[in-house]
Formats: sequence, structure tokens, C-alpha cells
Amino acid sequence: VWIVPNLLFNRVAFIGIGLIGSSMAKRMLKEGMAKELVACSRSSDTRQKALDLGLVSKTYEDPAKAVKGADLVVIATPVGSYSDIAQSIASVIDLNTIITDVGSVKKAVVDSVKPYLQFPNKFVPGHPIAGTEFSGPEAGFSELFEGRWTILTPDMQTDEEAVNKIICMWEGMGSKVEIMSSEHHDMVLAITSHLPHLIAYTIVGTATELEEDLRREVMKYSASGFRDFTRIAASDPIMWRDIFLNNKEATLDVLQRFSEDLTVLQKAIRRSDGEALEDLFSRTRAVRRDILEL
Amino acid sequence: VWIVPNLLFNRVAFIGIGLIGSSMAKRMLKEGMAKELVACSRSSDTRQKALDLGLVSKTYEDPAKAVKGADLVVIATPVGSYSDIAQSIASVIDLNTIITDVGSVKKAVVDSVKPYLQFPNKFVPGHPIAGTEFSGPEAGFSELFEGRWTILTPDMQTDEEAVNKIICMWEGMGSKVEIMSSEHHDMVLAITSHLPHLIAYTIVGTATELEEDLRREVMKYSASGFRDFTRIAASDPIMWRDIFLNNKEATLDVLQRFSEDLTVLQKAIRRSDGEALEDLFSRTRAVRRDILEL
Repeated sequence: VWIVPNLLFNRVAFIGIGLIGSSMAKRMLKEGMAKELVACSRSSDTRQKALDLGLVSKTYEDPAKAVKGADLVVIATPVGSYSDIAQSIASVIDLNTIITDVGSVKKAVVDSVKPYLQFPNKFVPGHPIAGTEFSGPEAGFSELFEGRWTILTPDMQTDEEAVNKIICMWEGMGSKVEIMSSEHHDMVLAITSHLPHLIAYTIVGTATELEEDLRREVMKYSASGFRDFTRIAASDPIMWRDIFLNNKEATLDVLQRFSEDLTVLQKAIRRSDGEALEDLFSRTRAVRRDILEL
Repeated sequence: VWIVPNLLFNRVAFIGIGLIGSSMAKRMLKEGMAKELVACSRSSDTRQKALDLGLVSKTYEDPAKAVKGADLVVIATPVGSYSDIAQSIASVIDLNTIITDVGSVKKAVVDSVKPYLQFPNKFVPGHPIAGTEFSGPEAGFSELFEGRWTILTPDMQTDEEAVNKIICMWEGMGSKVEIMSSEHHDMVLAITSHLPHLIAYTIVGTATELEEDLRREVMKYSASGFRDFTRIAASDPIMWRDIFLNNKEATLDVLQRFSEDLTVLQKAIRRSDGEALEDLFSRTRAVRRDILEL
């Protein structure tokens, strides 16, 4: 038997093989992280694509069949499906199976998965902060996680060895790893990701409701600001529906702060208060500098 | 005397030589569009940079001196300064001088420049829809306008030959040119550019007011949405202050529509109305497709 130095798992089962799942599979293959990769998808089209792309050796429609014999299960579907998935795989997985996920919200994920698991200490919730506006297995690429952060949210009960293996896996994919509580993750991401998406969806939605002529011109002259928003607002609809439904509290909280600030700015414009505008615009410019210096 | 085929002007005077002015100067030099370029700036630092970068052969602090003998004057300062500039150059320019500008709003620009001009028919208001989040003469590059739109907003009185020359100039810089009324320009740009900037400034501003720890984390995990907003919100503060002060009506109008749509979305999240969310997110995804197909 050859010893593969990067080998972490025997059989990895992906539940869902879209942008994130397929990018992980590509990188796992490249690094020799697992002996066998398999995938589960409800869509026969996706299953066929995953095979055609050589991402996995077997595909399944039924999650319970997919996870059989796997020592790692990666849940990579929209988070609204997690509870059903946890229920269907619970009886099949054993003590040696680590379960992780890649969902963009963490508290709701933990709440909808752990109650069904026989060995909840083997569940290591995770979130790679990486993505594009494209979706599906054909959108994946092995460098997606390179230099990006992955946040893990284990709790006091989570098995330490399982956490370490998941850290190794993400570092092997080029990612930097940070650990925090699921509640804290959801608050931070509400600001950095969920609110920006909500705003982008709204502003692009506002444009779709314009009279036809004006709408065409908005598309045509979209270069200056609006175009960036349309890229963000082109993200997977089901995935984002589930994010907002599952991070309701934190999203509504930051949305409230945003609305208050927007009202202040609106008033400054109405009153022609140039000083207030300049002051805000100078502060926000400094934020960009801070980020680029990180 | 050599005949330079692309020669359009003898002496071009830039009033303001920031990102846009310096990019125009670089391209004019490259194409041989003018015999001589000069620039005016209130900042001695900017004047020195413009000379050091070889963008212009002479610099001036006083607009009236800069425009003397120019057959093209390009106003490329924040739009709040236009009225003062128009007043100081009005008596110096003659019948043969074309005046144009690059301001992001057009109605207020026309209103603040034309009344002072002896030959208002030689004023061709313009707006190249191009830019970056960087500013100053060192930020310019000759390809900035390549493939982008420039909107001109002449009126019934504007000299046709002057308009044609400005069209030639922009096309020579690689830009596509469109003509519309200044009012219409301001409405379209309020949606495609001014509102997105306003929103980006607000959301980044909201983040700056967070508690220090959370703020640091927001910077750290900014990859997923927020980072794009910080780039937009890093745009020149004075320029943008002046845009909002000078396109108040249209900006407040689209902001009102946006706020209404945001309230609807907020309510959908609060009520866990997944169908409404999915419906909007699918519509906005289609907009991206439309734009990429243009």
C-alpha cells in the first residue's frame, strides 16, 4: 500500500455538489486528500455533470446511501435543506464519521442538524468565505479557497480530533482557518455579507421595476456602480433565500442600523449639508485603506 | 509643417487634472490630438505632479490664465466649483474656444456654467462613464475610456461643429458616444451610479460605527460582498459630495423607490416569506444576464 502524505479521509461524501462542493472535490483530488469521493444530488443533471467532470466516482440520489461508509460527510446544499438531510443520514452514519458543512449561517445550521445526530460531537460546522456569482458543479475551481478565510464554529462538546482534521482539510485547500461561536459568526456575516447582498438585491430589483425605456438605459450605462451590484445580485436565489430565512435576527438588526444611517444621509442631501456628506465619505474612504492594509 | 492626422486642437486647457483629466491628457498625447496641453489646479502639489508625469507642458493656478489662447477648455473639477470657474474664465475665452466638461451631473452643470458664458453655444456638456476609486493625476491611464460610454448633453442652441469635434475627441479616446438631454442623463445616472454610491457609502459608514472588536472582524472577513462596497465607498469624497448636492432631486427620488422596496424585503424576511425572496432573487439574476448580453 502506498502512503499518500496528504491523505486525510478514505471516503468523502458530498451532499450537494454545486460551486463550493465541486471546488472542494477538485482540490481534494489535486492534493490526494481522499481515496474516494462520492456525491449526492436530487438533480439527475447535476449528478451527471459531477461524473462527467470527473469530480466523483459515484453519485446518489438518496443521502442515506451516499454517506454509507464515508468517514467524512460534507453538507453543501442550501441551508434550508439541512434538517431533512440530517434526518435521513442520522441512522446510517457511525462513530467514525465526521460531518461538516459549508453553510453561510451557523446558528440555525447547528440547531437543525445536531438534534438528529447520534454523535453530535462529530459535527464540525464550517463556512468558507469564498464564492462567485456562478453556481453548479461546472462553476467550481480548485483555487477558490486560496488565501480566503474559513470559519469553524465547534462548541464545547465537539470532538477535538474531528476539528483538527477539518482544520487540516481547509489548510490543505489553501484556506486560513478561524474558530468562533456560531452566534458571533452570524452577526459578523450579517454585516459583511448578508446585508450587502440584501441591498444589492433590492437596488437591482428597484431597477427592474422601471419603465421599459429607462430600464434599458440603466442596463446600457450600468458601468458606474450598478454593475457591481448586479454581479452580487446574480448569486444563487435558493441559497440566499435560505440564508435570510435562517439568519433573520442578525440580518434585521443590521438592516435596522443601515436604514437609520440611510435616513441621516437622505436628510443631509435634502438639506444640502455638504459638510456631513464630505465627513462620511472621508471616513468610508479610510475603511478601504484599512482593509487593503490587512 | 507636418500634418498630424488626429490633430483636433491647438491648445487644450484642463481645469483640474485628477483621474479623468490626466487620463484624457495621456490619451490625447498618445493620439496626437493637440499641439499643446496645459493644466490649471489650485493645488501646487497637483501642478507639480502633472508636470513631472509629463502630462502637460505648462501649469497655472489661475483658470483665467490657463484658458488664454486655448481652443478647447476641459472642466474636470468637482462640479461644485464650476460656477466659480465659469465666472473667472468667461471674459478670457473667445468665439473660437470650445468648452466641455466631464462632470457626473449635467443639469446643474449647465445651469451653473452657461449663464456666465459670452458664447454659451460653444459649451458642450459631457460625462464619460468611466472611473476608478483612485484620484489625482497619478491615477490616470490612457485606456480608461476604452469601450465605455460618454454621454453628451448639448441643447438646441449648441453649435453643431463644436459637438462634432467633442464626439471625435471621445471616439479618438476609444469611447462610445451618446447624446441625450441633461435631465434624462441625471435620472439615468441617479439609478446606475449615484444611488449605488449612496448605498455603498451608507453601508460602509454603518460598519465604521460598530464596536471596535466587531469592526476589526468586519474588515477581516470582508471578502463576501462588503469588500465590493468599500471599493465604491472609497471614491473621491469632494467629487461625490458635489454630485449629491447637484443631483438632489433625482437622487432623492430613486432613493425613495429603493427605500420602499427595501421595506418590502424587510417585511418578507420578518414573515419568513421564502417565496417572495426567491422570486426577487430570480428576477435580479436575470438582470445580470441581460447586462452581460448587451
